[in-house]
Amino acid sequence: MSYEKLTPRSQDFSAWYNEVVQRAELADYAPVRGCMVIRPYGYALWENLQKELDRRFKATGHKNAYFPLFIPLSFIQKEAEHIQGFSPELAVVTHGGGEPLAEPLVVRPTSETIIGYMFKQWIKSYRDLPVLINQWANVVRWEMRPRLFLRTLEFLWQEGHTAHATEEEAEEEALRMLNIYVDVAQNEAAIPVIAGRKSESEKFAGALRSYTIEAMMGDKRALQAGTSHNLGQNFAKAFEIQYLDKNNQLQYCWTTSWGMSTRMIGAIIMTHGDDQGLILPPRLAPIQVIVVPIWRSGNQDEKAKVLESVERIKRVLGETVRLEVDAREEYTPGWRFNEWELRGVPVRIEIGPKDIQNHQVVLARRDTREKITISQDQLAERVPALLDNIQKNLFERAKRFRDENTIELSDYAKFKEFMEGEGSRGFVRAYWCGSRECEAKIKEETKATTRCIPFEQPKSPGRCIYCGKDAKEQAIFAKAY
Amino acid sequence: MSYEKLTPRSQDFSAWYNEVVQRAELADYAPVRGCMVIRPYGYALWENLQKELDRRFKATGHKNAYFPLFIPLSFIQKEAEHIQGFSPELAVVTHGGGEPLAEPLVVRPTSETIIGYMFKQWIKSYRDLPVLINQWANVVRWEMRPRLFLRTLEFLWQEGHTAHATEEEAEEEALRMLNIYVDVAQNEAAIPVIAGRKSESEKFAGALRSYTIEAMMGDKRALQAGTSHNLGQNFAKAFEIQYLDKNNQLQYCWTTSWGMSTRMIGAIIMTHGDDQGLILPPRLAPIQVIVVPIWRSGNQDEKAKVLESVERIKRVLGETVRLEVDAREEYTPGWRFNEWELRGVPVRIEIGPKDIQNHQVVLARRDTREKITISQDQLAERVPALLDNIQKNLFERAKRFRDENTIELSDYAKFKEFMEGEGSRGFVRAYWCGSRECEAKIKEETKATTRCIPFEQPKSPGRCIYCGKDAKEQAIFAKAY
Repeated sequence: MSYEKLTPRSQDFSAWYNEVVQRAELADYAPVRGCMVIRPYGYALWENLQKELDRRFKATGHKNAYFPLFIPLSFIQKEAEHIQGFSPELAVVTHGGGEPLAEPLVVRPTSETIIGYMFKQWIKSYRDLPVLINQWANVVRWEMRPRLFLRTLEFLWQEGHTAHATEEEAEEEALRMLNIYVDVAQNEAAIPVIAGRKSESEKFAGALRSYTIEAMMGDKRALQAGTSHNLGQNFAKAFEIQYLDKNNQLQYCWTTSWGMSTRMIGAIIMTHGDDQGLILPPRLAPIQVIVVPIWRSGNQDEKAKVLESVERIKRVLGETVRLEVDAREEYTPGWRFNEWELRGVPVRIEIGPKDIQNHQVVLARRDTREKITISQDQLAERVPALLDNIQKNLFERAKRFRDENTIELSDYAKFKEFMEGEGSRGFVRAYWCGSRECEAKIKEETKATTRCIPFEQPKSPGRCIYCGKDAKEQAIFAKAY
Repeated sequence: MSYEKLTPRSQDFSAWYNEVVQRAELADYAPVRGCMVIRPYGYALWENLQKELDRRFKATGHKNAYFPLFIPLSFIQKEAEHIQGFSPELAVVTHGGGEPLAEPLVVRPTSETIIGYMFKQWIKSYRDLPVLINQWANVVRWEMRPRLFLRTLEFLWQEGHTAHATEEEAEEEALRMLNIYVDVAQNEAAIPVIAGRKSESEKFAGALRSYTIEAMMGDKRALQAGTSHNLGQNFAKAFEIQYLDKNNQLQYCWTTSWGMSTRMIGAIIMTHGDDQGLILPPRLAPIQVIVVPIWRSGNQDEKAKVLESVERIKRVLGETVRLEVDAREEYTPGWRFNEWELRGVPVRIEIGPKDIQNHQVVLARRDTREKITISQDQLAERVPALLDNIQKNLFERAKRFRDENTIELSDYAKFKEFMEGEGSRGFVRAYWCGSRECEAKIKEETKATTRCIPFEQPKSPGRCIYCGKDAKEQAIFAKAY
């Protein structure tokens, strides 16, 4: 039984993506259009990501809570920009318990409004501030072009919601949480990101300022991997979230919100994967080490010896790494190697009769596909070190790829040429005057959008790539998911 | 500022319950009728319960996954009993993305149907079995008489769904998971439960057999705290979940489902609470120890010394117990004592100037409200032991209360008398012939329902409490939540 190959990424990246997601059993399309089923392997990856985020949220003083799925339609309409942004994407419940409802209920697309309503009940005085809350939840946005993990009608995420006494504190909070996203993306998911501010037209519907982390996928497109918003007093005014300050004066709060979603799984797949399939960063991989024992079919003595060694490997490594064994006799060793490469397990341990004789094992690393032979006595030391090394290598390789595919341009003709065609050639750093008009024209003419205005800027100002007027800052332009 | 007392339980149990839930900041009513907001303190309790369940599910080979919130209405209709049971409780989405939908979508009340549909795609051969899956999710059932945690329109739960090759394996699984619920209820939540089988009229809509754990609340009513269902081949036939057996014959699978929900938080409140408020079992309490430092107002020297000792206590206990400090100067010590009693923290450490002098602290246990004075050197040893002791005492106290309020009856006149009035006098163990008619008559005449047919039965048969005919088994009858 030969192992069926994936469509190569260079031939059709999108087909490759769908094949990997489904064949690695990360997710499946559900019978409802645009919805997904997250399968155990994909969900375990999500759980590992959740743990890393949740740990950091709690360490910075946030507490988890849970707010209702259903939001009265009138709530969404209270913040003018918010309803404009979200109204085309709403799922609406009109019947409950067999009766038509007096007021339709919206299935939450995000929870600023209902949480704003509760904040109003809970916050009375400056002593109640800040309120630092996070929610793990499902949300629904009616997507027209669904893609597994990237854009699904329902997705899982966390949404943080905080209220503060001052603008400074809200700003500080929004940036603190963006930095947590940078940390998790880079140090856990091994995805290099560019942190920056969203343009006015790309910001969250209802925010004062939106911050984002942007990553480059294997097809050189951009993907927004997490956002954090300083909502100013917009929601506080719409929902009357007020507090009495130390002078007994009534003040509006300043609020923030920030979210990261199951989309990050899409980012992991598209950042690290190759033509053999997934490559999972060791720190998040549900299985870090797969042991594939080998013996000649029917040779019970050989089988017993090999499996005895496998038990020893489990004892040595089982406590420190997430390890599984694939001893299925109905598949050849080659087929099993391919299967676990497709599933992106960082390290494979091969052990057969020859290895037993020499008291050795073969370690195959997924990222470079190199194999080394080591003594079984070295397992406890070498395997964790190899996982660390793979984690670092994945990050550095992705960063190199992004940097090699990022260009600084000042000439619009060259910009247009760079953005030509269906695919993407990468990121362009260019000065931009900040006007909505230039941004819209560029998008119309090239399909490239401003991904962010990076925090890291060159020392000197320049001229807008589109209109040539003075521009204080550069933006990252790219075709995006 | 004096501390406002709760309505005593003996006066109005239901008012007491609502006051405790809201004043202890476990939950709040949401602006949508029948929905709740789970506040951080209540959610932390849920997270601790989740951890204990999840750990046991994983240890027994189950994997988490996630299935869509929306289910096509036609799916719910495929299993005849299932649609009958659930159709009055459905919330229906009729519009999405601004358009009316061709087929209405149901917001999941439970996920047997959509998971059944996916099982059909995934299961081909006996090698694929068993499939052991669990989902953490929100579900919606249109409740007419909502109560926080007990019956809300939306609630959080886990729902396990498994598929097996044989009836025996499915039965074994259903019982295995019920036993996990027994374990978690008794050993983590300190709630004694009676495990047994549901009657035909009380079983899950679509199940072959339903198993349940039933607990007695402080007002002597019963509460169903977790259920596990052997679904037989009902859903397998409705959704064509089939596999090829070893002889290459197509067979229908046997499936199970099992769930425990945020209702358990209601059970914890109503089992252990007293007129001072919540009493949380130490193993699940978000805060196990609250330190209340005391000094004379304005005495900075005293304050510094007391807070220094508090730091030492944190160092000694902070790693092993979940500890917080309430050093708020705007509240008197007495007010703070009352507040943390209301919130059910198992152990309070009081430390003031006199205690500093004597190198001691006062430990106040929440369950018995006893105080003991111990040397500060004994903290590391005594506090964890005290928490264990409280955990045991809560369980034993609740068990004693239940046993004292459980009576065995064989005379229907006495049964009716026992069940008279609005309130509840407890559980009745009585022989029942098993007929739907007797059960329905008893319910009609006394408002008592069969809670379960306990696994533990007397050796000899008896006569049905209603019709006097031969009865093989006893049932537990009670007024229930």
